[in-house]
Amino acid sequence: MTRPLPVDQALALVLQATPVLPAEEVPSAESLGRVLQQEVRAGHDYPEFDKALMDGYAVAAAELKETPRLLRVLEEIPAGRDPAGLRRLEPGTASRIMTGAPIPPGADAVLIIEETEEVPGEPGSIRVRGTVRPGENLARRGADVPRGEVLLAPGDFIGPGEIGVLAACGRTRVRVGGRPRLAVLATGDELVDPGQDPGPGRIRNSNGPMLAALARRAGAEAGPAGIVRDDEAALRAAIERGLEGDALVLSGGVSMGRYDLVAQALRAAGVEILFDRVAIKPGRPFTFGRRGPALVFGCPGNPASAYVIFQIFARAALRKMIGFRDPAARPLRGTLRNPLRQRPGRAGYHQAVVRWDGSRYAVEILPTSGSADFVSCARGNALAILPAETASLDAGETVDVILLDDDADR
Amino acid sequence: MTRPLPVDQALALVLQATPVLPAEEVPSAESLGRVLQQEVRAGHDYPEFDKALMDGYAVAAAELKETPRLLRVLEEIPAGRDPAGLRRLEPGTASRIMTGAPIPPGADAVLIIEETEEVPGEPGSIRVRGTVRPGENLARRGADVPRGEVLLAPGDFIGPGEIGVLAACGRTRVRVGGRPRLAVLATGDELVDPGQDPGPGRIRNSNGPMLAALARRAGAEAGPAGIVRDDEAALRAAIERGLEGDALVLSGGVSMGRYDLVAQALRAAGVEILFDRVAIKPGRPFTFGRRGPALVFGCPGNPASAYVIFQIFARAALRKMIGFRDPAARPLRGTLRNPLRQRPGRAGYHQAVVRWDGSRYAVEILPTSGSADFVSCARGNALAILPAETASLDAGETVDVILLDDDADR
Repeated sequence: MTRPLPVDQALALVLQATPVLPAEEVPSAESLGRVLQQEVRAGHDYPEFDKALMDGYAVAAAELKETPRLLRVLEEIPAGRDPAGLRRLEPGTASRIMTGAPIPPGADAVLIIEETEEVPGEPGSIRVRGTVRPGENLARRGADVPRGEVLLAPGDFIGPGEIGVLAACGRTRVRVGGRPRLAVLATGDELVDPGQDPGPGRIRNSNGPMLAALARRAGAEAGPAGIVRDDEAALRAAIERGLEGDALVLSGGVSMGRYDLVAQALRAAGVEILFDRVAIKPGRPFTFGRRGPALVFGCPGNPASAYVIFQIFARAALRKMIGFRDPAARPLRGTLRNPLRQRPGRAGYHQAVVRWDGSRYAVEILPTSGSADFVSCARGNALAILPAETASLDAGETVDVILLDDDADR
Repeated sequence: MTRPLPVDQALALVLQATPVLPAEEVPSAESLGRVLQQEVRAGHDYPEFDKALMDGYAVAAAELKETPRLLRVLEEIPAGRDPAGLRRLEPGTASRIMTGAPIPPGADAVLIIEETEEVPGEPGSIRVRGTVRPGENLARRGADVPRGEVLLAPGDFIGPGEIGVLAACGRTRVRVGGRPRLAVLATGDELVDPGQDPGPGRIRNSNGPMLAALARRAGAEAGPAGIVRDDEAALRAAIERGLEGDALVLSGGVSMGRYDLVAQALRAAGVEILFDRVAIKPGRPFTFGRRGPALVFGCPGNPASAYVIFQIFARAALRKMIGFRDPAARPLRGTLRNPLRQRPGRAGYHQAVVRWDGSRYAVEILPTSGSADFVSCARGNALAILPAETASLDAGETVDVILLDDDADR
């Protein structure tokens, strides 16, 4: 067993051991939430033609220095018209034009319809009341984006805006970061499936579903969370199956008990253990290893410990695999609403509710019964971090917080 | 056409018109990301029995006032043992116990294994070096959660922590808010599908995929984004199909042009228009209506306008349908890195990149070519809001920002 590593050193070792998965090509329509792994440049100017931004009349601005003025209407140009077929404006003429339609030759502005009126008895003419500046209410070719401009870059998260850009560029398929396949195994003779009555002395497996959910929120594919008995052969077989994916997350079996067969089974499977203790609370007996490119996260069996270890270490590794530029959680700073105490020596990761109070983040540390407290993981929306050497913070002091992505209300 | 409504009035009208969808029951394993619509109470005490929190020896603390002391080991208690079958400790005895195992009668503490040593020649005994306080390293029945305590409440977002609680409570099925079915229609003769070459005078439909992606990120089911020509019969038929769902989002066809048939087709379909102009930039010609419980969001055709209108109005409505307690986006406050100007009269929603700089949110307003700028929606991760009456803010001044959920890096 190693000396407990400081959190930042442990995280650096995890990220160093984590490969970026090969990119894959997917239909753009299915790329929402993935991470782009290619550059996307504008294939042409946007707009590709001088374009009306308002409904009105395409005019030569110089003709409207003195108003009111009568103009003869040449034609009506709806959006979608081929610019090559448009009639050139002559002196004393205008063309009716719709938003998005191409500007005809000879015009340099769009006069909005509200500045004109129909002429009784002359259906082919309009009376112009207002004036317009050259270039007003139109977009010149390339005004939004010139051809060749880099619009999206590798590492960009594909949200709705990026989906729009891909569509505008005609990219129906796109290269994105691979999606990690992750196996979750909860170990222990005391566990039963959530649908079963645990009976005396046993408990339901809540870690497995929780860890699988954490993995899915981080962008991974997680198989169904299985239970493995405290049996060397069963454990070994389950670990071998788990190592076929990109990551294996185990819960339980990593403390010092005689039945804690996990480390033993991992070593027997040829997993290189990089460390097995971290100076973190909760979560000290966190075991991290790898076999080839596959990573192993051996989380403690207590729910609060497993939750924190996943959020800080496994989530960062999965995000690196996917191709995020900044895989590790970045703390913000908030102001404590209640005091926080801990025994120095390990960095404390405290479940907290963080709310914006109008000018800053207010941090309320949740009461907890300890690392077996499975409810605080649901009640909190953030982790407040107390450095290992700090014994206490008072209400009103600032504290680092990591906002967790399972609170859609912020 | 109505007078432009202030944003808060328009949003209030939208939310007032929005129904909460009936809840539905789903397997808990598929409930991640949904909103809970039932209460979940602890069906029993957690833990349900006094439980060891460490590996070691179950002891009577009073026996260890003077150490070193020799104790005879009665039995070995692994996690999962039935508490009813455990042997009662007698004076001078201890039982080997594993993390998670039930505490035997007569014991009131767990002595960690590091405080003991084996006795050469006496395999059934241990020598105790340390002492232990009553209650140390064990959790009393009900210490985490007493039976009957409310663990989850209607309106809770189901994240990984909630998945763990549902599993621990044996809830394999759960009532969640309904998922809105949303139709997206992009209107305009100038539009072609993203996979097609637009040819002269036409453009690819980027709004449709972008709006469908926004809807999916907000928790709705969005059908494939269709294109409708500027043809009254086609529009009417498409609107009728869209109204079969919970919401219909249209882009384009809501300004003043002669081809803007959308409002006309909506009225013909029996849609009640609640307003058709909002004092917002971009996005003024936003038309909102309803027919029965189905809502209609008529967004302007410019990408930046459609994006802002969706983020501020449609997203809030979808979240209310789903059952979120707080459906509308809640602004935070940041500090401008560059100055911001606008013509007063409409509230300005400016695409921005917001980053935590170590002590506050730094807000960089993105340059834009106007409401047709489809790239700034991808480049930004937030909207900075300038009130309608404000003409400018300088660098260093504070500004309200809405963080958008498409930036997974924050």
